[in-house]
Amino acid sequence: MRVNREQALHFVKPHLNTERFEHTIRVTDTAIQLTERFGGDVEQAELAGILHDYAKYRDREEMRRWILQDHRLPKDLLSHHHGLWHGPVGAVMLEFEYGLEDREVSQAIACHTTGKKNMSHLDKIIFLADYIEPGRTFPGVEEVRKTAESDLNKACLAAASNTITFLMNKHQPVYPDTFHAYNNLQNIILNS
Amino acid sequence: MRVNREQALHFVKPHLNTERFEHTIRVTDTAIQLTERFGGDVEQAELAGILHDYAKYRDREEMRRWILQDHRLPKDLLSHHHGLWHGPVGAVMLEFEYGLEDREVSQAIACHTTGKKNMSHLDKIIFLADYIEPGRTFPGVEEVRKTAESDLNKACLAAASNTITFLMNKHQPVYPDTFHAYNNLQNIILNS
Repeated sequence: MRVNREQALHFVKPHLNTERFEHTIRVTDTAIQLTERFGGDVEQAELAGILHDYAKYRDREEMRRWILQDHRLPKDLLSHHHGLWHGPVGAVMLEFEYGLEDREVSQAIACHTTGKKNMSHLDKIIFLADYIEPGRTFPGVEEVRKTAESDLNKACLAAASNTITFLMNKHQPVYPDTFHAYNNLQNIILNS
Repeated sequence: MRVNREQALHFVKPHLNTERFEHTIRVTDTAIQLTERFGGDVEQAELAGILHDYAKYRDREEMRRWILQDHRLPKDLLSHHHGLWHGPVGAVMLEFEYGLEDREVSQAIACHTTGKKNMSHLDKIIFLADYIEPGRTFPGVEEVRKTAESDLNKACLAAASNTITFLMNKHQPVYPDTFHAYNNLQNIILNS
């Protein structure tokens, strides 16, 4: 499918508030920049960026039903914070509601919040773009942006580490995929 | 089995150097104190304390063969630091070499380094005793000792958190059971 930026933006806009729509544009532009820097398909990065938060404001009970009923969605999401649901649920919804057929784009949307083990190049681009887009002010984000100038894996690792540390400092559980992302990226870097 | 402290100490002593034998005594005494504080079977705590590091200095290749050949031992140990092997391998070796039949003691020995999801009361006692025994000087250990005066779960959580933070700061992978221990204890505390 050929990306039509305007059509895709027009599709997601009614589902987002102004602030989130502006975040979406910044993630998309960051994903394109990262793809130009580290390689990959710019059109896939653009489409994944535009669509990544599609389900962000969907009704929580509707998302719960998707998780319960779609066999592809991991049930353990239900015992973790609902803020993690919109990625995986959005990826499935987009197949139905947008006609998204690109499995790589779908997968990158699914794991954009948590990361996971064995992320694809596109998964990493979207995970990182969502973390470092210019509107983000997380503690430590500036260091991740600096790392993202030269090393995609190290920047994703730093983002996953910061997320784990942030949640641990807040005495919150951490979704296991984020731990798996940390371990996997750490091993890739240690063995490179 | 009735614990005979002297017999058990006599059994492990040839397998440990002086420093590690002294650590073993301190872990045992700490485990007994924690059991007196939080409840549980003092004899089980004593036996688990005495035996917990039994395999600490076993040959690495011998431990690797045990992991490969005993169906109860998780194979993913082999892709993690060998410093994590002596707990689970020791638990299995002790069944053969010491005649250890107490499954609860065996399990506490198996997970004493990493922790795990759904630790038993005895698992927590040994995991914590190994972390806070008076010879330990980990960063943050004093705070864990303080917490261990009143709350077993919170103290174990703090130990798991410190271990994760320590490894992340050293850019090392973290064995998944330690993450699972963190999440599980965090949820127990948040829901209590």
